Amino acid sequence: MSKDFTQGTCREFVAALASSAPAPGGGGAAALAGALGTALGNMVGSLTVGKKRYADVEAEIIALKAKCDALQTALLDMVAEDARCFEPLAGAYGIPVDDPNRASIMEDALKTACTSPMRIMELCCEAIEAIAVFAEKGSRIAVSDAGCGAALCRAALQSASLNVFINTKAMADREAAEALNCKAIGMLDKYVPMADRIFENVRQGLH
Amino acid sequence: MSKDFTQGTCREFVAALASSAPAPGGGGAAALAGALGTALGNMVGSLTVGKKRYADVEAEIIALKAKCDALQTALLDMVAEDARCFEPLAGAYGIPVDDPNRASIMEDALKTACTSPMRIMELCCEAIEAIAVFAEKGSRIAVSDAGCGAALCRAALQSASLNVFINTKAMADREAAEALNCKAIGMLDKYVPMADRIFENVRQGLH
Repeated sequence: MSKDFTQGTCREFVAALASSAPAPGGGGAAALAGALGTALGNMVGSLTVGKKRYADVEAEIIALKAKCDALQTALLDMVAEDARCFEPLAGAYGIPVDDPNRASIMEDALKTACTSPMRIMELCCEAIEAIAVFAEKGSRIAVSDAGCGAALCRAALQSASLNVFINTKAMADREAAEALNCKAIGMLDKYVPMADRIFENVRQGLH
Repeated sequence: MSKDFTQGTCREFVAALASSAPAPGGGGAAALAGALGTALGNMVGSLTVGKKRYADVEAEIIALKAKCDALQTALLDMVAEDARCFEPLAGAYGIPVDDPNRASIMEDALKTACTSPMRIMELCCEAIEAIAVFAEKGSRIAVSDAGCGAALCRAALQSASLNVFINTKAMADREAAEALNCKAIGMLDKYVPMADRIFENVRQGLH
């Protein structure tokens, strides 16, 4: 029988998400979902390497697997980083509203809270590009996993974007806020349709 | 500093997904992503209960939180169950092609391999219905988490569906295969748009 991976930190993380604790929240869940999606792309690569039928793409797949190993680790690391980046904001909400420094502390905290979801978005975009190649060139027996990976990274990208938008909405520096929004929307506009194309191609192939 | 939940089984699960091992795969990743999404809806509930402003929906939110607690546990349990349901199929692929019993063993194994992704789909549909209520009636400060929850459960639902379709495609009993496909497509047709509406409402509210 397979190991039950959902004992331990997996189950603890889900329970912590469901609680009223300020972190982990949507950003951390997005990072883990992105890591799961990236790993499913990577799995297609693992089932491709060493197979005679796919010898002509082997070098490309091996390089892409190394990239996904790094992306997976970076996304997993972002789970804790997202909680750290949210800490100053959780603290800022506790500052009395008549404190003259509250506004500037809050502004800095909002900018800090945007850094991790922006980074999670960038990592998910790279993962979706990798999954597109696995879906196109990787082993046919694992094609459904590439489709799942695309769906999960799409959701992670979108979830991270909400955690950018909720913070930019509250920022007083509208120029900085609009620059962040613009960058986030640019990623959504390019990579959500790319993930949808991967998923639909896989789904059509299964009917 | 917050606990790093991604040490331990979380990181081990991601590494196992990325490997060439037959399980865990897309079904198990879908189950975990569904649990993450359900927990984010549940978190909105946790931040709603006990707040004077939401006193009129408190009883409904408490009941919905209890339902999400059960859904989270059921989805986490499906991670291991999905690996178990895939075992007979992994074994069937190893049977020599000239074995007269191969076809019937394969057919049974394909049906068994469909049971867990179908169950994951049903659980994700229930989670999306719950998240719709949290998004509508729950605390405004956590509205982005409801949007993330909807996106993650949508991806989990879609990922599980691919694991139904890849197995029904190979089934000889076309009547049973079409009945499963029909049920899966019915869930996708109803709940993907519902999750999209939740996400878009949240996103529009953040601009």
